[in-house]
Amino acid sequence: MESSTHYWETLIRLAEQAALRNEVPISAILVHDNTIIAMGHNTVETHNDPTLHAEMLVLKEGFSKLGKHLSDCDLYVSLEPCPMCAHAIKLSQIRRLYFGAYDPKGGGVEHGPRLLHNLNRIEIFGGFYETEFNKQLQTFFSNLRKT
Amino acid sequence: MESSTHYWETLIRLAEQAALRNEVPISAILVHDNTIIAMGHNTVETHNDPTLHAEMLVLKEGFSKLGKHLSDCDLYVSLEPCPMCAHAIKLSQIRRLYFGAYDPKGGGVEHGPRLLHNLNRIEIFGGFYETEFNKQLQTFFSNLRKT
Repeated sequence: MESSTHYWETLIRLAEQAALRNEVPISAILVHDNTIIAMGHNTVETHNDPTLHAEMLVLKEGFSKLGKHLSDCDLYVSLEPCPMCAHAIKLSQIRRLYFGAYDPKGGGVEHGPRLLHNLNRIEIFGGFYETEFNKQLQTFFSNLRKT
Repeated sequence: MESSTHYWETLIRLAEQAALRNEVPISAILVHDNTIIAMGHNTVETHNDPTLHAEMLVLKEGFSKLGKHLSDCDLYVSLEPCPMCAHAIKLSQIRRLYFGAYDPKGGGVEHGPRLLHNLNRIEIFGGFYETEFNKQLQTFFSNLRKT
């Protein structure tokens, strides 16, 4: 059984890898039966596809492994999901969403349209390792501005 | 140059094909320089992936052909896009969205979170061939209930 500390440390490492590849450092992990079954980061720049957010990638890997309902799965994400990912999360029927930093500007879960509110089915927990994840994002965008 | 009548007739035909494959009859077409560069329908059941909406499929084909900004493209969809697709449409930076039937329950453009409102960048036109598209959906779900 993997601990949630292990998940968050893995997310930090995955986001670091993203930044090294000039991808915005956002990462996601899909957990089933206490085991990671999919993990990844944003690959928008690599594939020139603005929909390739980390959440979409791990959900899709989950669907290919377990079918179209991931009701026994938990999703861990470094940043509050955007509205596209929030609705994909709703469609996936995952059990629990855990996310790191809040995203007041682009988030769609606790901000903006709050797409997962009033759904009894999914439990939502935010604010994990917020300082670390925010620092990764700030460093990335501050380096971008310097180049 | 293709006419918009041709696009709507193609969308009706694509949605019919979807229904024959036991997919919810929803279709999409991506147009660039007055030419269809991507078209398709919902393939959720075929691939066991609830995010494989028609809009996502044609946008992704568009990204692979033209890169991550589709600012010279117009998107035609048989039904008002859901919040996931609406936000993907926003990310794609397409120029115009034309859709058929309104979706008061599941839509995310003119209903629900209205995700594309207050964006100056994208023009939105809805209600085309509404009777036809609604009839396709009603027939599909009525047949489902009989089986």
